Amino acid sequence: MSNARAKNPTFLAWRDSQQADVERALSLWVPADAPAGLGEAMRYAVLDGGKRLRPLLALASSAAVGGSRDAAMRAACAVELIHAYSLVHDDMPCMDNDVLRRGKPTVHVRFGEAQALLAGDALQALAFELLTPEDGSMAPDMAATLCRLLARSAGATGMAGGQAVDLASVGQALDQAALEAMHRQKTGALLQASVLMGAATGRVGAAVLAQLTQYGSSLGLAFQVVDDILDVTADSATLGKTAGKDAACDKPTFVSLLGLEEAKAYADRLLDQAHGALHQSGLTQLDNLHALTDWVGRRAH
Amino acid sequence: MSNARAKNPTFLAWRDSQQADVERALSLWVPADAPAGLGEAMRYAVLDGGKRLRPLLALASSAAVGGSRDAAMRAACAVELIHAYSLVHDDMPCMDNDVLRRGKPTVHVRFGEAQALLAGDALQALAFELLTPEDGSMAPDMAATLCRLLARSAGATGMAGGQAVDLASVGQALDQAALEAMHRQKTGALLQASVLMGAATGRVGAAVLAQLTQYGSSLGLAFQVVDDILDVTADSATLGKTAGKDAACDKPTFVSLLGLEEAKAYADRLLDQAHGALHQSGLTQLDNLHALTDWVGRRAH
Repeated sequence: MSNARAKNPTFLAWRDSQQADVERALSLWVPADAPAGLGEAMRYAVLDGGKRLRPLLALASSAAVGGSRDAAMRAACAVELIHAYSLVHDDMPCMDNDVLRRGKPTVHVRFGEAQALLAGDALQALAFELLTPEDGSMAPDMAATLCRLLARSAGATGMAGGQAVDLASVGQALDQAALEAMHRQKTGALLQASVLMGAATGRVGAAVLAQLTQYGSSLGLAFQVVDDILDVTADSATLGKTAGKDAACDKPTFVSLLGLEEAKAYADRLLDQAHGALHQSGLTQLDNLHALTDWVGRRAH
Repeated sequence: MSNARAKNPTFLAWRDSQQADVERALSLWVPADAPAGLGEAMRYAVLDGGKRLRPLLALASSAAVGGSRDAAMRAACAVELIHAYSLVHDDMPCMDNDVLRRGKPTVHVRFGEAQALLAGDALQALAFELLTPEDGSMAPDMAATLCRLLARSAGATGMAGGQAVDLASVGQALDQAALEAMHRQKTGALLQASVLMGAATGRVGAAVLAQLTQYGSSLGLAFQVVDDILDVTADSATLGKTAGKDAACDKPTFVSLLGLEEAKAYADRLLDQAHGALHQSGLTQLDNLHALTDWVGRRAH
């Protein structure tokens, strides 16, 4: 598998400029003036952190279908807000009890548990607010579609459902099918939604949408397999969070199930499927989606 | 102040039938099959509980403007899901640490803190999913408006923001203006949104909308003043939650600020304002909104 695309200067320049645009938009939209420190906690949770993979997928997917850039930026920030809130809640003592995230103290360590809980809740609400601007800048049918895609991917049949399975799986002997099903919900659903929300900012036919759906599905699962690989191969400083956490918590992973080498091979197969779905879509402006796919994979190599 | 309307058999029959309809709709829409016990926790948090005041306001408001009944039921259930999630998170140990709600163990007592956190998160997402059905049963502009109203009322400038102020206010000497501002966000915003979402299921002019906005504002604040009165006058069995909690927690309330009698008089003035705004709207099908207003007030008498 070639990773040349992920190191391509054109891609890197695009990625850096998009990350900066997303940061500016988030800084504008996440309220500094929310009362009693809530805004500060929300901004701490969201700004100046992360690879912005989900926003980049939404923006690249929108560009691939010739979608609205303004709508895509709202979609990009909305998925990132959902991702950010899930990390805040995930890190809390009653969940993963993590004290380090992106190299900084987690939100509940910095602001207290109650504020972390509220900040997460408010970030989720803000995501849907971003998708429904009152200024007429987004067509209502697009806004409704984006809200639907985001709500489904975040809720009981998506991310939150996957987290519930994850909680229940500690110390359990999940087989590969069960592990995959869990991760397709827990992390895959929101990554897939990022792609589909980007596509929803333009007009695409059912066949293209089916390939982008497949792309998001393969990429989402690949992301998690790579994440499991990194949990055993990288150190905490590189990850910006506590390494070896899954094994220490006796959580099933693709590495514990398949072994390290087979997990790497599986990640490569999923990434190949993702590239293949992009090719099958027949879209022409796909360089950044291909490069993002390589970028997801490259982290593990 | 007359409470005859709140005891009117026509109103009581309407209220009971609407509560039953809401219960059926929630039972249909809150997933029983969400994985790993998440659906069970969500249903426990939502079903078979509460007065359903917010849904009733949405349904009555929709009927007053000749709105779509199907859309109103989705709006009614969506606001109730937001309300239910806020109670689940509010009751958690890091917030109010309540063990009793509607006469039952709170969600985190029954299902554990992690599941309570996730159930709340998933209920918020489900609210927006309900407002964006894929079957074409709701006009996209209506769906987008409903999502916008709900997101704003739930987020940092609404309910979550008010909760942050509430947290920060323990042991503080708030004046009446600060206390009102807090409650207008914490509980008022969602009650007002219930009215406005109901109205958004029909077509109303700006003048009518302004009066309904005023109505929701006055009613929302009246609700909280009455709640504070009940906290000192009712017992836990009547409330279905721990009475005297606010005073025990050294939280400022309208009763601690104004005294019991003046708080009752203030509630009556706010309820009169609410009725007045309804009259000013010029709408004709207002009996149930008037009766609901009396019902909110009657609890304290």
